[in-house]
Amino acid sequence: MDLNSDLGEGFGAWKMGDDDAMLDIVTSANVACGFHAGDPSVMRRVCERAAERGVVIGAHVAYRDLAGFGRRAMDVAPADLADDVLYQIGALDAFARAAGTSVRYVKPHGALYNTAAVDPEQAAAVVEGIRRFRPGLALLCPPGSEMAKQAEKAGFPAYAEAFADRAYTPEGLLVSRKLPGAVLHDADEVASRAVAMATTGKVVAADGTELALQPHSLCVHGDTPGAVELARRIRAGLDASGVHIGSFIEAA
Amino acid sequence: MDLNSDLGEGFGAWKMGDDDAMLDIVTSANVACGFHAGDPSVMRRVCERAAERGVVIGAHVAYRDLAGFGRRAMDVAPADLADDVLYQIGALDAFARAAGTSVRYVKPHGALYNTAAVDPEQAAAVVEGIRRFRPGLALLCPPGSEMAKQAEKAGFPAYAEAFADRAYTPEGLLVSRKLPGAVLHDADEVASRAVAMATTGKVVAADGTELALQPHSLCVHGDTPGAVELARRIRAGLDASGVHIGSFIEAA
Amino acid sequence: MDLNSDLGEGFGAWKMGDDDAMLDIVTSANVACGFHAGDPSVMRRVCERAAERGVVIGAHVAYRDLAGFGRRAMDVAPADLADDVLYQIGALDAFARAAGTSVRYVKPHGALYNTAAVDPEQAAAVVEGIRRFRPGLALLCPPGSEMAKQAEKAGFPAYAEAFADRAYTPEGLLVSRKLPGAVLHDADEVASRAVAMATTGKVVAADGTELALQPHSLCVHGDTPGAVELARRIRAGLDASGVHIGSFIEAA
Amino acid sequence: MDLNSDLGEGFGAWKMGDDDAMLDIVTSANVACGFHAGDPSVMRRVCERAAERGVVIGAHVAYRDLAGFGRRAMDVAPADLADDVLYQIGALDAFARAAGTSVRYVKPHGALYNTAAVDPEQAAAVVEGIRRFRPGLALLCPPGSEMAKQAEKAGFPAYAEAFADRAYTPEGLLVSRKLPGAVLHDADEVASRAVAMATTGKVVAADGTELALQPHSLCVHGDTPGAVELARRIRAGLDASGVHIGSFIEAA
Repeated sequence: MDLNSDLGEGFGAWKMGDDDAMLDIVTSANVACGFHAGDPSVMRRVCERAAERGVVIGAHVAYRDLAGFGRRAMDVAPADLADDVLYQIGALDAFARAAGTSVRYVKPHGALYNTAAVDPEQAAAVVEGIRRFRPGLALLCPPGSEMAKQAEKAGFPAYAEAFADRAYTPEGLLVSRKLPGAVLHDADEVASRAVAMATTGKVVAADGTELALQPHSLCVHGDTPGAVELARRIRAGLDASGVHIGSFIEAA
Repeated sequence: MDLNSDLGEGFGAWKMGDDDAMLDIVTSANVACGFHAGDPSVMRRVCERAAERGVVIGAHVAYRDLAGFGRRAMDVAPADLADDVLYQIGALDAFARAAGTSVRYVKPHGALYNTAAVDPEQAAAVVEGIRRFRPGLALLCPPGSEMAKQAEKAGFPAYAEAFADRAYTPEGLLVSRKLPGAVLHDADEVASRAVAMATTGKVVAADGTELALQPHSLCVHGDTPGAVELARRIRAGLDASGVHIGSFIEAA
Repeated sequence: MDLNSDLGEGFGAWKMGDDDAMLDIVTSANVACGFHAGDPSVMRRVCERAAERGVVIGAHVAYRDLAGFGRRAMDVAPADLADDVLYQIGALDAFARAAGTSVRYVKPHGALYNTAAVDPEQAAAVVEGIRRFRPGLALLCPPGSEMAKQAEKAGFPAYAEAFADRAYTPEGLLVSRKLPGAVLHDADEVASRAVAMATTGKVVAADGTELALQPHSLCVHGDTPGAVELARRIRAGLDASGVHIGSFIEAA
Repeated sequence: MDLNSDLGEGFGAWKMGDDDAMLDIVTSANVACGFHAGDPSVMRRVCERAAERGVVIGAHVAYRDLAGFGRRAMDVAPADLADDVLYQIGALDAFARAAGTSVRYVKPHGALYNTAAVDPEQAAAVVEGIRRFRPGLALLCPPGSEMAKQAEKAGFPAYAEAFADRAYTPEGLLVSRKLPGAVLHDADEVASRAVAMATTGKVVAADGTELALQPHSLCVHGDTPGAVELARRIRAGLDASGVHIGSFIEAA
């Protein structure tokens, strides 16, 4: 099982999260590429630290929206979106290569992640941007999403991501953050869900039914001190259950 | 003799210059990378067109200053500047590669060009950014400049650029644009200076003395209809004089 | 009848349209405020020129999207949108006041115009931003739109804008630019539609039925040489028909 | 004696400092205006909170450099700088007025502060921007600086700012941060220097000589938990010494 986290989300004088602490926990780093967060110096630093620890680097591509942190849906034309994706991967890859590795996968961020999960045009644009960079580069995305379908169509690997701290609908979608119970805060419960996901591929949905997610990677957050501690708990829980922790790229 | 021009300087809805016309004239395209001009879609388009015509692509790296078009000196820390340079080369290279070629040289733009020509720290930062991308990648810069020295020190090729439409001091520096006669407007004179530079390596300085510039490339501008016409005249003048026009990269 | 045009849409080194030519034609200037176009120096210049000619200044507020020229729908939270609107009006008003006048109305730009025309939440956010600046400030918008309704609800005047060079549906909406015939290019036809709108308040819709728009202002474009000429034709046609040309603000 | 602090320095998802804590300590808030930090929603919030507490609002104007937090010197043309200053004051004033007050003074930020302290052209451009907004608006700046001189020349009040936690040269300049001892960390010493500045107008310079600064305002920082605590100590020290704490504006 892979653990991934959104890293390198500072910008200029502004910090976000504890990249160093998270790089000791995760096996895949989704590194911001400058469109929603991440300036070149932040990108260099997180790529160097990730490479030192053997953490796999992915491009966390986003809409161009620093003021909104990439969390606002934007009606970007598919052709422009493919160009934006290519630009971001190329920029990050330069830092990854300078650190002795390379960009090994792409994970859309925020509003782009949400839109491309359900919108075939935006999903195809993301895959097209990836294709222009390097055909066959992996995509990390929700299982069964439009992104996964478009990647499959292009013949690129799509790895399934799940969230141990989020409630799921019986259909396998995340319960909206606007609804009560969408985010789980009990560390024991979250850790045990992570172990269930890793060992059985299944999780109990919000209505009590059992759901087969079969994730390749669990997303853990690191933007608050509490989040880092929860990420450590998840990792410790997986270790204690004998789950092998490693990148989906290495495993592939 | 190589002819280079600053291209891809539109941004979003804003146009600048006639990239297509200039790509029929020049042999090297200095392509903006998004920091002073150039959005991803502009970058894609100019890279595709350049590749189709066999025009060599260079990264026109700049300070991060869209509002000032990269023309305002900025006191960027050398470490940050190296990161900014690497980011821009990486982003452009993705488009160059998608078009079947790659970034073959780097030319700093505007205020960065002027500062790095004389400031060892900024020049070294530009060269360090290049080194991290690919040791040995060429730099296009003023002959004898700090950039040329720092490139030489690193063992990278530095190609000398000259301007047929600018007056030179006896020391080989450009006469400041604030002084009368700094920019030459007579097309015949400009074309004949270009031919002199290409055939003898020499040009007459502002004080009448002869100056040995030995340029590898002449910079021609294309941001006004008149500029495109002047560029055509320079090219025609060189052709008529039997000067071989070709990239300094191919020649290398 | 008022004539309005989108002006001050340059940014830094980039030009757009011929502000000076248009300021001799129109009576209301929708001035960009820096979010989709317009830097402080452009804003100062157009405000000074408008004030000299007695052209009324309006704030052309937009989503924060320079790369997309404010033409891409963005899912901005209403509270943030109200703040963005207030920021832009305040900035422009400083230039208008320095030129001896003030911002007299607000017209949303591009995607914000289209969204706020139909989305009650976004329309209310625009009106809320205006209210915080100065309760009662006018809004220039499509007749019958959500913006008009929200302005009316707040007790602010909403002036109706129409387009002489666009086809209308029988319901009074603009025919989508994606459909054939959406934009009229025949100068005589456009001028005669303008005269009809100004003298009868009516225009023939795309299906041949007569439509009562009753506009207070006609929007004319100036971003190409042809557009400026068409604007002059419209003005001349109105003048020849004895239509009084003047700002809706003065008329109020 | 006035206490001022740089506030509203978050941007989008990024936080900086504890505005609320500092607003309980200071009497003047230097509010970022969007060029180095501060988005419209941050500006609204800090203006509302400042107005509630009777803290006077000043415009913390800066170079347009989000990535560098306005800390990098930029060679902005004086005419453009005046426009940039006017834009920022106007935008902030809209929020101050919506909160029931107005911008009462201007303090340049970071690199602009440093440059305008010694460069007559940049200082004059700042004063010109202020003049266009409202002749006579106050400037908060180093005593004896070019800014102070240019404000005096224009007939605008310039209030003198000092730093209790910084070492001074015998000439009254700040010791460069690059030199040892430039920043004082001992809370008791800083508090006692603040009291000396407030009661005698004097402070001991780095060489042991006594220096007459006669400040109207002391700048306190709030961007770290320790800084907030130090600010509280300074305020408590002044209170304990019977120093009246209040804005230089109210006092004027």
